[in-house]
Parts: sequence; structure tokens; C-alpha cells
Amino acid sequence: MRLLITAGPTREYLDPVRYLSNASTGRMGYAIAASAARRGHSVVLISGPVEIAPPQGVTVRSVVSTRQMLEAAVEEFVHCDAAIMAAAVCDFTPAHTAQHKQARKGQLDLHLLPTPDICAHLGAIKGSRIVVGFALEDRDGKTRASAKLREKKCDVIVLNGTGNIGSENGEIQILHASGEWEEICRGSKVELAEKVVQLTETLVAKVGSVRAIS
Amino acid sequence: MRLLITAGPTREYLDPVRYLSNASTGRMGYAIAASAARRGHSVVLISGPVEIAPPQGVTVRSVVSTRQMLEAAVEEFVHCDAAIMAAAVCDFTPAHTAQHKQARKGQLDLHLLPTPDICAHLGAIKGSRIVVGFALEDRDGKTRASAKLREKKCDVIVLNGTGNIGSENGEIQILHASGEWEEICRGSKVELAEKVVQLTETLVAKVGSVRAIS
Repeated sequence: MRLLITAGPTREYLDPVRYLSNASTGRMGYAIAASAARRGHSVVLISGPVEIAPPQGVTVRSVVSTRQMLEAAVEEFVHCDAAIMAAAVCDFTPAHTAQHKQARKGQLDLHLLPTPDICAHLGAIKGSRIVVGFALEDRDGKTRASAKLREKKCDVIVLNGTGNIGSENGEIQILHASGEWEEICRGSKVELAEKVVQLTETLVAKVGSVRAIS
Repeated sequence: MRLLITAGPTREYLDPVRYLSNASTGRMGYAIAASAARRGHSVVLISGPVEIAPPQGVTVRSVVSTRQMLEAAVEEFVHCDAAIMAAAVCDFTPAHTAQHKQARKGQLDLHLLPTPDICAHLGAIKGSRIVVGFALEDRDGKTRASAKLREKKCDVIVLNGTGNIGSENGEIQILHASGEWEEICRGSKVELAEKVVQLTETLVAKVGSVRAIS
């Protein structure tokens, strides 16, 4: 199958050097892309700024801002069977970007606007394609993940704790569209990535069989 | 000699996952630390969050925020002959840090305060030690560098263009306390690092000979 995967943080610049971002190394998304490529899938990875080498056999499109990631994702999604949204995008952007670096003089008031919701965008146009959403939550994880599943029209939500950021190991919990939660899954990012790719394979296969029947 | 080197960006968190930062990979500061160690100096590198392996023979102290970098720098500076301030610290910090991740609902107004000026702090307490400041400017570079030299009581300012960010090569221009500018120096970051370390050696040696005479 052909997979769209997003990874890393995005950046929203205040001026030519300062930006807003999210704590994300991109390791989970890159591990998912590498695992998918190893399993024989065609992979396009849309990546925010990270310091990781592109996984072998994967097409990488580098972007900086959330809007750029959205545009690349919409473009690629039409050619894919599924999207795995592992990026931790910056969800606020300065209403105004200064053309020059501002000097550190006195205080600064920043007015921030919400960035586009990439996952919800893909959910709205997915048709019979699969969207695997991610939720990074530091409290009320299950409640928030359930809300995201519905609002973004995902087929599944991978719930991540903030404890996973930057670490080699982690734990995820998977919520299906039926509302059913799987057992907590612990392991290295490579193992968790494998789990997410297998899950996506199963979901795509199911849709495929529905397609074949109808 | 014993050198204090700062490198990388710092981060100022709005909540547990979102932060303000600066475009800096830390490569210049790490190259300076590696070069100083190769030249036989004792080096303590105070580093913001980067994805670079610690250079061989260098003691690395990892910090996240500008205040943490200041505290570590003040602590280490008393044991050093010179400080090379290559970090591109975040110079604004949210007046308030939220305890929990904020949901992307509506707009957000951020009130930012200036962070402490580490270089000016060290300049104020340096005595006969050397402070090598860096200026990253996207316009009026020479004027701004001259102002920084005076305000921060640096012995020298290394003027950097924003074009150097993230690239392997770059150019710097050096301003001495006398007000004299050296010729523009172009090269790889390793070559530029070598230049900065040699300059620092010369400055420390001069103070040393002054000390010996007086």
C-alpha cells in the first residue's frame, strides 16, 4: 500500500530567527516510516525540522510550518491508502510575523491564532481511505482522545503520553472507531512503530475487502 | 587554558509541550568546543537542547531555559580564563507558564518578558577574564555589534549573519574592543571555530602578560 506519514514538530516564526514550536524529536514518525518501508510499503514522509537522517527507501518532503505541512499532506493524500499523523504540529501561529529580528528591549505581546488542523482536514476528505490520528495528552487522555476521534473523523487514535517525548521507549494506547480501547502497548519506538503500521495494514485491508464486496 | 563555551538555542515553555525558541542547531558552538579540546584546552560546554553528540574530551552541561544557562554559566565562569558565548538563547519568556497543555481552541495572547542577558552578566563580573560575545543580526550588523560590545563589556564580538543558521559553511566578522574590524572570514564551521579559539588564546595570553607585568 501507499502511506502518507507526518513527523516531527512544525515551527511558526515570529521573526527571521524566533519561533514557536513543540517538543518533538520526530523519532516516532521516522520509526513508523522506516518500519512501513521495511514491510514493503511505498512511503512519503512529510517532516518538520528534525535532525534525523531520512529512512531508507522513503520519500521525504521537508516543511517548516503547519500550513506547509497541510498543503503537502493534502497533495500527497490523494495518492495514498492511509495517512499516519505522527507529527506534533505547532497549533498556534503569530498573527503577525516581523520582517526583521526584534531586539530584546522591554516586553513583547504576541497575538496567536490557531493553525489549520491537518488531521481534521484529511478526515474530512478521506472517503474510503484510512486516517490514523495521534493524541499527545498530559491529562484526561482517554476523554480527549475520544473527542479527537470523532471531531477529526479518524479511524483510530494513538494516544501518547508527554512522557514519551524525546525518549527511546514509550507507551501508546489505541482507540478504535468503535470506541474500543486496546491494552496499553509498551516498548521501544521501533516496536511501537511496527504496531502502528500493522494496525494500519489491517484497517486498509478491511476497507479493501468492503470495497471488493460492494 | 580553561574555557566556558555556550551553544545551541534555549527553550522557554508556554506549557508542558509548547515553547518559544531560536533557529540554532548548536553546530557552531559544538565546533568551537571540539576545536578548543583538540588544541589542548579544558572545556566546559553549556548546551541548550540540540541533537549533536558531545565532542570528545569536553564536559557538557545540558540546560533547557535561558535562566538555567545563566546559572550554569555564572557557576562555571569563576573557574575559567574565558567565555565564548556562541549560544543563540531565547530572549523572551512567557510571563506565565501553563501547568497543562492548552487545547487549540480560539486565539491565544502571550505576554512575554525579556530573559536575562547571559553575556552582559558575565561581562559585568569578568574582572581580567575574557568574554567573546556573538551577535546574530539580519540588518545593521556592524552598528548593532558595536553597541553589544560596549553594553555587554565584551572583549570581542563575533558577528554572524542569519544566513549561517543550519548551514555547514558561513562567514563571520570580528570586532575588537578597540573598535577595529577584522576582514570577513569565510569557511566551514570547523574553520571558523578554529579562528575563534585562536583569537581567544591570543586575548587570554595578552591579559596573562599584563598580569605578569603588573
